[in-house]
Parts: sequence; structure tokens; C-alpha cells
Amino acid sequence: MLTYNLADTGSDAIYTYLYKCIRQDILSGKIKAGQKLPSKRALAKNLGISVITVEGAYGLLTAEGYVYSLPKKGFYAADPELMPAVRPAGKADQSADGKGRAPGQTIHTGNVVLTGGSRAYLADLTSNQTDTAIFPFSIWTRTMREVMAEKQEALMVNPPCGGIMALRESIAAYLADFRGMSVNPEQVIIGAGTEYLYSLLIQLLGRRCRYGVENPGYHKAARVYEEMGAGTAYIGMDEEGIRIDELEAKAVDVIHVSPSHHFPTGHVTPISRRYELLAWASRGEGRYIIEDDYDSELRLGGKMIPTLQSIDASGRVIYMNTFTKTLCSTVRISYMVLPYPLCERFYEKLSFYSCTVSNFEQYTLARFMADGSFEKHINRLRSFYQKKRDSLLTAIRQSPLAKRAEIYEEEAGVHFLMKIRTDREEEAYTAAVRAGGVRLKPLSAYYFREEGAPLAEGRDNTYVINYSSVREEVMAAAVQVLFEAAVTRNKSKNDSK
Amino acid sequence: MLTYNLADTGSDAIYTYLYKCIRQDILSGKIKAGQKLPSKRALAKNLGISVITVEGAYGLLTAEGYVYSLPKKGFYAADPELMPAVRPAGKADQSADGKGRAPGQTIHTGNVVLTGGSRAYLADLTSNQTDTAIFPFSIWTRTMREVMAEKQEALMVNPPCGGIMALRESIAAYLADFRGMSVNPEQVIIGAGTEYLYSLLIQLLGRRCRYGVENPGYHKAARVYEEMGAGTAYIGMDEEGIRIDELEAKAVDVIHVSPSHHFPTGHVTPISRRYELLAWASRGEGRYIIEDDYDSELRLGGKMIPTLQSIDASGRVIYMNTFTKTLCSTVRISYMVLPYPLCERFYEKLSFYSCTVSNFEQYTLARFMADGSFEKHINRLRSFYQKKRDSLLTAIRQSPLAKRAEIYEEEAGVHFLMKIRTDREEEAYTAAVRAGGVRLKPLSAYYFREEGAPLAEGRDNTYVINYSSVREEVMAAAVQVLFEAAVTRNKSKNDSK
Repeated sequence: MLTYNLADTGSDAIYTYLYKCIRQDILSGKIKAGQKLPSKRALAKNLGISVITVEGAYGLLTAEGYVYSLPKKGFYAADPELMPAVRPAGKADQSADGKGRAPGQTIHTGNVVLTGGSRAYLADLTSNQTDTAIFPFSIWTRTMREVMAEKQEALMVNPPCGGIMALRESIAAYLADFRGMSVNPEQVIIGAGTEYLYSLLIQLLGRRCRYGVENPGYHKAARVYEEMGAGTAYIGMDEEGIRIDELEAKAVDVIHVSPSHHFPTGHVTPISRRYELLAWASRGEGRYIIEDDYDSELRLGGKMIPTLQSIDASGRVIYMNTFTKTLCSTVRISYMVLPYPLCERFYEKLSFYSCTVSNFEQYTLARFMADGSFEKHINRLRSFYQKKRDSLLTAIRQSPLAKRAEIYEEEAGVHFLMKIRTDREEEAYTAAVRAGGVRLKPLSAYYFREEGAPLAEGRDNTYVINYSSVREEVMAAAVQVLFEAAVTRNKSKNDSK
Repeated sequence: MLTYNLADTGSDAIYTYLYKCIRQDILSGKIKAGQKLPSKRALAKNLGISVITVEGAYGLLTAEGYVYSLPKKGFYAADPELMPAVRPAGKADQSADGKGRAPGQTIHTGNVVLTGGSRAYLADLTSNQTDTAIFPFSIWTRTMREVMAEKQEALMVNPPCGGIMALRESIAAYLADFRGMSVNPEQVIIGAGTEYLYSLLIQLLGRRCRYGVENPGYHKAARVYEEMGAGTAYIGMDEEGIRIDELEAKAVDVIHVSPSHHFPTGHVTPISRRYELLAWASRGEGRYIIEDDYDSELRLGGKMIPTLQSIDASGRVIYMNTFTKTLCSTVRISYMVLPYPLCERFYEKLSFYSCTVSNFEQYTLARFMADGSFEKHINRLRSFYQKKRDSLLTAIRQSPLAKRAEIYEEEAGVHFLMKIRTDREEEAYTAAVRAGGVRLKPLSAYYFREEGAPLAEGRDNTYVINYSSVREEVMAAAVQVLFEAAVTRNKSKNDSK
């Protein structure tokens, strides 16, 4: 067990001091690469400090790349080859107290550029972070500066709960132009991220409703519904989308779907199923469809089918979209479009809430949309991701991995599915790939299954390849890692002890 | 009843078109100043459109100052003297569709400058909006530009749910320096406004707890608790703060208090009552105190008493503060400090949430705090408000109003209480003052009372004077309005017909 003297931590907070101690031991080799660190609880007990303090230290070590974590396994000292150990110790010291290197600054280790946040990885195929190269820094800065110079009075005025009118008008115009939707600005409600909007919706529709979510799917939505005290149900999918019979059988009131492009399978719900969904909604009082259109802007091909919102005649569709995919994941601006009867209820019941997005960013985005910059940016984004996808597919085709991999659904703008032929179990393959510096998430992780229930047929060893943050220069190396892990046989259980 | 032909609204949305029609009728005198407009429902029914559409139109008319609303009364055409009617009609037309004048741009009507949002008023004594003169535009812009130039990688990295470490470290350092609080950065949770943080707290502590709120007090907190499905109880106050006996009698689990400076009465809870509160909390499992320290930075005098958080030895105090008072109400950044056991629970249960504040503003604020700008700004703010308060008090002293007014609790940074001696009832006085262009809210509005219950003795005709957004050049005129309304006798019921 690690033991450190925490009686005198100097000017450091305990967690910072602990972080420095452990880092020092990893750098000096006292803790070996791949060695498991004690659990947070055990270390806390041993040192007589709070678990949260250990959590803080482990968090820093992970963020800095000295340590990596495996789900349900614990924390491990990272491979020195992948560590930011090339920095002199003095500089590393500064970064711990926030006064030195920024947490996300680029680190060059040999030829490989590791990006902030996923820095310990050669390639993080699970990350949705925006590539720094694609965020329109100069025009965004200029737009914000203009807004701050010209709109000083307006910036200080508390906006209505739904957001500033100029932005809602820009969004309504955008939806008309690009999604063929006819929407009035007062139907558009702006919030700090879709998770926040879900919480407003639950307050609007009530906690007594049962909220259905797609299975497989984006589990965070279900998590929000549950934390907010609402009942949820996992609804199975077929090739055409959500299964209507299960909606009926599980007595769902509100169904959360992504018909334009299901995550993570990539399925597009055909028009026939869309009408069936609308029919389901209109059959029962208080039934609603939440249409999550999170990445429609980034589709690289395939047919565009009308949104549910645009063919809904009975006011049962709540449309949702976000700027976290198109602008960047760290600018928290999302919106929903409420059908009129709900819109009225929203203003009566929830308009006392302050809008959660800063005026500064609302006015900047409104101007960015109104002057055509957003449209130009989307076009640039699309070709950027297309090029990135093509490069990755080329790297796979040119590698021996090609004979062991099948690619699906590559029309999505930021991810596709890849089935790998290997003797390894998913967990062992993921760990082996990770040891080589590539982070990967299996499709099975997006399934909600009852204890012991089998995975849908043919869905094992299928991985969600999120290429949005992978740099071109590391693609060949990353593909090589994927290949080598696939051909190396599992160690027997005795070997791994 | 107003009737307009809405069959052809041109390129306008219906609500915009309706707004233009009514504005035209007000400007032309067809609708007289002070005339009551039809209720939203009645007008919607008459025109065969949705109530929400009428709401949109009325909202624009109110925001633009053509119409004002009286609580529980309805909407009235504004006094032409106070209206932005000096603008040419063509320009006004543009503003309606968001392409022309910004909604908050300054309008000059004679010598009187009316600010955006409260534009229809000579002085809005209910507004908490930040005066444009005091927001540090140039340094904020510069700081943001530096961040956007230097931190591009970090800006793209998804922060932990509690916010970026640099800002949490700045906040911890600030609390140590200015509030004598010893807090670790991992205890600090950043969110888009205190309302959002309340909703996180309810998810953390549970909906089964009963949440107590101060009576009188800031009712929005109770509203959030209720909308989130939690039970609430209104707890009476005495001169020393919240009443402990009522906490026990009403079986409260979590009490929301503002001991540093109660809103709106301005009472400061003495140290003895603070210990009683802590004793109450430690007597029962699962009891917590939410300490709302919303304006401690803006105190203009009086003794600073240690926060509950800093004298809490049993981990029962959740400290809350916000930058909406010190920076501006439209930058949505607030934070809470969790005691360790709760902190641990928070990370286990709720760390899946994305932080609701944009990275851009978090890094800007972190730098603004770290380089000393925040401290300088607070000092500037304090003397700005002190000067403003002194000017208003002088204006009152020099007016005949002085003989009819008593001032309480003027040590608060942005508001004080004023009791007015007048024959008028509160409602009539408020309306008369409003007709003169001054917006005012009585203290009684902050009391929650059972149907028919009397107001606490001596609390009638006492008004909360929020002077933060009142410009010095209008103070004498506004005080004159307050005086004239106080001496004019109520019209008899027959007269007013």
C-alpha cells in the first residue's frame, strides 16, 4: 500500500500534494507501468483522509496521463512511453497548482501529438471532443468582440426564460432553410445543454409519465430522467427504429428517439415508421415524442427524411438539437422546439426560470448565424470530417486489419461501427488496444440488458469508432494497434495472474 | 375588442404582425394611454389564434415600452411621454423583427435616459439588472481574447461536471481570502445560475426531504423546489433570522437561509442564532443548511459575521454564492461548496452531468480572478453602489418625501427598505407611482401568507428600493413621483369608473 506523510503539505491542498507524491513515484519507477494503484477507499483509509481527496489526486493523475483507469477494474500507472514524462519535473510541478501549463495544452512526445483530455492516448476513439483545428477561433473571437462593443446595453438585459429573441429567430430561420421546418421563435427554448432541457421537459410533462429510451442508445438521457424522479423504460429497436409494439406493451407516455440518425447504430428511421410513431402518439392523451436531431448537420450522405416535427399535425413532437456537435462540446448551447399547447404550458409554469445560457454567448451565436458564418462553418466541418473519415478508412484498407474488419454506417459525420474478427473477448480486446494507447468502446456498452441476458446476435466485438478527435498523423499507428490486438491470442487465465 | 385581419401577415410571424398592429394603434391614439388591453385569452379567442401568439405580441410590446402590465390586472397602453415614440416609425418597424435596433439599446427621450428592459420606466426600483456603466467591458473583452488566443486546446476539453479546476481553485482562494473559509477546489461545484444548482441539490438530497424557505424571502427558491417535486415549508423569521421552533414544528429537513444578509429585510443573523441553526442541523440525520451568501461582496458596512460554512464542524452546511450580482446578471455563473460527505455522494451519483457553464466563460473568469481584476472590480463596484445609494438618500432628504419616509437597512449594497406614510393602500400607491414612471415592489409581496392572513405588523406600505440600475440623473424626478403619489388621496371607487 502507498504511504505518504501528509502532515506537512506546504502550501498545497492535500489532493495536490498526494498527486505530486504519486506522480513522483511513477516517474521514478517506484510504481511500475501497468501496476494497479490501491482503490480510492483503501488509500483514503490508509492515509486517514477523505475518499474525495484521493479522487481529486487520481483525477489529476488521469487527466495528466500518468494514470489510466479501466471500468470496474481500477487505476493503473500508465506506460512511460505514452506519458508526458518528457517535460522537466519543475514544469510538471507548476501544472499541478494550475499556474503553469494549461491542462489541455499540446504535448509533443516524439512524432506523436497527444491532445488535452485524451492525452494519455495515441487515439481516443470514444471522445466527442471538438478538434481544435476545426473550431472557428478567429471569427468567433471577432464576433464576440463586436457584440461586446456594440451591444453593451442589450448584454445587461435579463433575457426571457427561453433565451434572447434574436437567437431564437436565427434558429427558426435556420430550421426553415435546412430542415424544412416551420417554427415560430417563441416555440424555441434555449438551454445550457440538452441534459438541462430534459430536466425542464420532465418538469413540464410531469414525473408521473413513463419515459421510454432507445435500447441500444444514449444512456445519459435515461440517467437524467431517473435522477429527476421519473420512471423509464428501455425500448428495443429493429432495423427501422424504435419498436411500436414495445411502446404499447411497456405503457410508455413519452418516447425519446433519434430517427434521423440513431446513436450508436446509425440507423435512419424510414418515413413509414415515422408515421407509425406519430400514430402511436396521437392514439393516447399525454403521449409525446422527443425527437433528438443531435447530428443532422453532420450527415455525410444518405437520404434526408423529413423530421417528425415537420410532419406532426397533432402537436405531439418536441424537437431537440444542440450546438455542441456543430460548434464545440464545451460551448453549452442547445434548444428545443415545443408544439403550441406545450409552449403555452411552458410559459405558464416554467417561465420564472432564468435562461441558463450567458447573454454574451447567445448574442455571439445569433450574430454568427445571422451573418452566414454558421452555414459556412457547417460546410467546412462537413468536409473536414469527410476527409478525416476517408483517411481513417484508407488507413484501415491499407492495413492487414482490413481482412479482419467490417465497417457499417459510415455515412455518419463523426462515427461509424467496426466489427473485428478476433479470438479475444471484447473486454480483453479493449484492454489490449488500450495498452497500445488506443481507447475504444464496444457497441455492447450501449445496450441495456437484464442481468445475464444475451447480446443481440452478431453485435459482439463491434466497436463504435468516433473519429472526430483523432489526428491524421496517428491513424496508421492506431490502426496497427487495433490489428495487433486482434491477432494476439488471449492469455490463459493462469498467465494473466 | 381589438380586431385585426391576420389573413395576410406578409413575411411576418403572426405575433410580430399583431405586435405591429397594436403598436400602430397605440401610436396613432386609437388605443389611449392607460387604456386596458383585452386579456390574452380573450384576444386570442376573438382573433382565432393561439394565446401564445398573443403572449408573444404583448411580450414585445411590453419589452419595447408601448405597454405595461400590472400584476393580476392585465396590460395597459403606456403613457406616450414615457414611450420610445420619438423614434421614426420606420426604425421601430425594424426592431420588431430583430434586424434593426438591438432590444436593449439606449433611447434618449429628452433629458431622461431609459435603459433597456426597463425602458418604459423613469426608474425601475425592482430591477436587479447590472448598470452598463459598471460592467468591466474592456478588461473582460481583453481577458476573453487572451483566453481564446492562448488556451485553444484547453477550451475544447470537456471539463469535469463541477467545472474547470482553475476556476474552482480561484474560487477556493477567494473564499479563503475574503470569507475566511477553508475549502478545497473539489468541493466547489460550478453551475449556470443558482436555480440550476438548487435542482442539482434536490437530486442529491432527494425529493423526499422537506425544504424550508424563509418567509418573507426570495420565493424563487421555493418555486424551484416545488417544480422539482420536493415538499416545501415557509418558515417565519424574527429579528435574528429564521425561527428554530418552526423548523422543528414543520419537520423541515433542509433549510434555505441567507444569514449574511436576508433578502428583502436586510437582517443579519447574529452568531448565537447561527450556532442554534447548526445545533438544529446536527440533531437530526439528513438535516442540511443551504447558506445563500448571494450579496456578501456588496455589503457597504456593518459587521461581517463568520459564514455558517466556516463554523460548521459536522458537514451540514452547503454554501452558495453567485457571480450574477458581482459580475452581471446575464453571465450565468454560480457555485456551491459541498461538505465532504455530500461531495462524495455528488461525484458518485451526479458526476455524469456535463458542466452547464461554457468553458470560454469559465476560463475567462478564472483568469479574471487570478490576476486580481475581480478584486479590483469588487472594490470599484462597492464604491459605485455606495455613491449611488448616497445620491438617492440625498435626493430623498432634499425632497418633501423625507417627512413621509423612513429608511431601513441601508447597509446592503443594492437595496434598502423604505416605509412611506400615505393614505393610499399599497396597491393604489404602487399603481400611482407606476403611472408616473417608477416601478416599485412592496415588501408584502415577499411574504407567503395563508388566504386572508394579516401582514406582519408595521410591514405595510414598506417598499424594497433596489437602486442598482437607477441612474443618478433621474433620481430627483423619481423621488418627486414617490412623493406626489404619497400625498394625492385615493380616488373614491366612483371616481375611478
